[in-house]
Amino acid sequence: MPEKFPTIIINFKAYKEGYGHRAHSIAQAALNVSMESGVLIGIAPGYMDIHPMSNHYNLPVYAQHIDAINPGAHTGHILAGAVREAGATGTLINHSERRLTLADISGSVKAAKEANLQTIVCTNDILTSAAAASFSPDFIAIEPPELIGSGISVATADPEIIENSVTAVKEKNSSIRVLAGAGISTGECVKRAIELGADGVLLASGVVKADDPEKVLRSLVSKI
Amino acid sequence: MPEKFPTIIINFKAYKEGYGHRAHSIAQAALNVSMESGVLIGIAPGYMDIHPMSNHYNLPVYAQHIDAINPGAHTGHILAGAVREAGATGTLINHSERRLTLADISGSVKAAKEANLQTIVCTNDILTSAAAASFSPDFIAIEPPELIGSGISVATADPEIIENSVTAVKEKNSSIRVLAGAGISTGECVKRAIELGADGVLLASGVVKADDPEKVLRSLVSKI
Amino acid sequence: MPEKFPTIIINFKAYKEGYGHRAHSIAQAALNVSMESGVLIGIAPGYMDIHPMSNHYNLPVYAQHIDAINPGAHTGHILAGAVREAGATGTLINHSERRLTLADISGSVKAAKEANLQTIVCTNDILTSAAAASFSPDFIAIEPPELIGSGISVATADPEIIENSVTAVKEKNSSIRVLAGAGISTGECVKRAIELGADGVLLASGVVKADDPEKVLRSLVSKI
Amino acid sequence: MPEKFPTIIINFKAYKEGYGHRAHSIAQAALNVSMESGVLIGIAPGYMDIHPMSNHYNLPVYAQHIDAINPGAHTGHILAGAVREAGATGTLINHSERRLTLADISGSVKAAKEANLQTIVCTNDILTSAAAASFSPDFIAIEPPELIGSGISVATADPEIIENSVTAVKEKNSSIRVLAGAGISTGECVKRAIELGADGVLLASGVVKADDPEKVLRSLVSKI
Repeated sequence: MPEKFPTIIINFKAYKEGYGHRAHSIAQAALNVSMESGVLIGIAPGYMDIHPMSNHYNLPVYAQHIDAINPGAHTGHILAGAVREAGATGTLINHSERRLTLADISGSVKAAKEANLQTIVCTNDILTSAAAASFSPDFIAIEPPELIGSGISVATADPEIIENSVTAVKEKNSSIRVLAGAGISTGECVKRAIELGADGVLLASGVVKADDPEKVLRSLVSKI
Repeated sequence: MPEKFPTIIINFKAYKEGYGHRAHSIAQAALNVSMESGVLIGIAPGYMDIHPMSNHYNLPVYAQHIDAINPGAHTGHILAGAVREAGATGTLINHSERRLTLADISGSVKAAKEANLQTIVCTNDILTSAAAASFSPDFIAIEPPELIGSGISVATADPEIIENSVTAVKEKNSSIRVLAGAGISTGECVKRAIELGADGVLLASGVVKADDPEKVLRSLVSKI
Repeated sequence: MPEKFPTIIINFKAYKEGYGHRAHSIAQAALNVSMESGVLIGIAPGYMDIHPMSNHYNLPVYAQHIDAINPGAHTGHILAGAVREAGATGTLINHSERRLTLADISGSVKAAKEANLQTIVCTNDILTSAAAASFSPDFIAIEPPELIGSGISVATADPEIIENSVTAVKEKNSSIRVLAGAGISTGECVKRAIELGADGVLLASGVVKADDPEKVLRSLVSKI
Repeated sequence: MPEKFPTIIINFKAYKEGYGHRAHSIAQAALNVSMESGVLIGIAPGYMDIHPMSNHYNLPVYAQHIDAINPGAHTGHILAGAVREAGATGTLINHSERRLTLADISGSVKAAKEANLQTIVCTNDILTSAAAASFSPDFIAIEPPELIGSGISVATADPEIIENSVTAVKEKNSSIRVLAGAGISTGECVKRAIELGADGVLLASGVVKADDPEKVLRSLVSKI
């Protein structure tokens, strides 16, 4: 059975609320809401938590980054095969906080596919989304940098960037899923993003820094 | 009781022999040799293996790198606090395969100390060793880049670089331990490095890519 | 009258034969051959030589790189507007020796266009060429990294990479010119590259490190 | 006759007021004030302007950055020898907007010295200043990053950082000149910095973005 593709992915970043035992609370909340709603939720914890979380929770787990390397003398770099062996389902690539060169995006997607990891390439606008589609990742996550962490939802602030990115990506390769990111925090945002053509959302602070992450997650799935 | 400082540290890099279940064999070998010889051996596995190894082996575990960040929106970066919470004892900083800016070496050492992690700053020559001593790390590991992975031991190929780095470092701060690296593979190399003033050695392929890591480790501790 | 697009572009890199008065000899040779053959030849000297060369030679002059910045506090970075004001015609972007992130390729192309500079985006394979076409640069220069400086011509070693890159690029935007690079050194190579669909060639050591650059340039244009 | 060392250095950054013909106005102002006051003023224009300015003004001209490279295949990088051949007197190294690794600071200082360029290593605090002194540059310029471009003078906001950096640097090597940077804009600031032990100042926006740069320069030298 092929692995499934989540509709909501939570990036834990390096938030103080997002690693160690605090990360477990969020993962448990995601599992609870995922099971009760039937909406698949993925999590992208820090590297340290990939192994324990992949083993403790029946959720798709994503690395926040991998390097475009093959096994070898690469101290301090992230190997796709090691991420897979730790139990992860996939990986973010080229997040706005961890940008890669064009050649390394290409190399990372290739390394991830060879390691049987799902690929989520992050982009910042319509042109970079169109460019990223050339690598046929499983997902493209479009996040206007100026809205990341702003609390202003991309779905209301810049609906055209979602619509036009979806068009640009799907024209090239209709099997690529598009995630909308930046400022998503409510079920209404998620609904709006999906109406605009997105297949799902990628979000971070809205859940991770919430007083009650489970409540936010329940809101997020409420209108799907 | 304060944590102890190892005499030998094994860097697993991103070698194919150095992650997942293969990493466990090396860690077990290190534990066996450490216990039978009384020589403390540290290991620096990939990020994915820091959590499981810190929990399974009674050995000092080191990250291969941390970033000079505080908790926050730093997707794909390595937080000192997360490394510590995963059970690690310390971290390499500025390895030749993961160089940092001067400001970030300073910031990483500071972040590691605040997280109660031992610090091993890697350098490439005498001047950079002297410079790194300004940050008062626990260790400075001097590795001439041209000898890394060469199979030629720094202790025989360039004994002066060890002697002079030790002098430059200890003059500034006598409590900093100096590790010799690059091309170390036998007990004779380790002995020679210590005679030249080093407090220990940092090595990688000599153990990790060996057919029988335990045999190599037994040789390494044999003349201490 | 719009600026013209060269068929041959010489990258001076940071070769010892490629800066200061030695660079002037190569520029003069390029001007001579260009005038006698009618084949337009462009030059990409180091930053220091952009101003004097743009003023002394009636040749298209390209920067080797610009940064994806607007005017501001960016010490040590390359501003498109400054390159233009110094007299340059255009710029290389994302050369294999100066890779950029996807977002910065997008930003550099935009900055160059706003400054009225021609854009030559360098790529390493078919997928990255297809991706780069999304930014509608004036040129895409495809250079397989393993052949750069090898003396083995891409046109004979890997003709399919040229043909397939041309197809991938022109399908997206037929007005983008494709340059073949890596290992080009003779008129035969240039002819073959053009037969494979390329609009021209980008080369470096074949001319810059030649005993007699003018002779090589005369060979390069001989079969066009 | 050895080249002289300026007391005031103006970094033109990539400000819109700092390149092309606008840069010439500032250089002319610096020359006028330098000649009338007898205080030597250096300028650090963008790369494009190093050649013309070195040829037109009898002032010490500094690059804003060089790379730690030898001549060779380094497209888009800055070669010390080319900077020297263009007429420059020296170079900034490791400016906060163009940070280098520890190994590359070492390599850049070495490359600059071999090319007979003065070296100004920029640092951000006392520890990094002490570390940089290991490389024996001609100058260390200490600029607290939080004050750069702030309009708040380091000499009033953080006098201890100047005093303690001077002590840390001169203890190691009394021949290294220390420049104070960040927020310097008046003669009073310059006077205070020198009283705190600095040999001079490095500044940027205070002059470059001024309505009347010559007037600001005249103020800067007024109390020396």
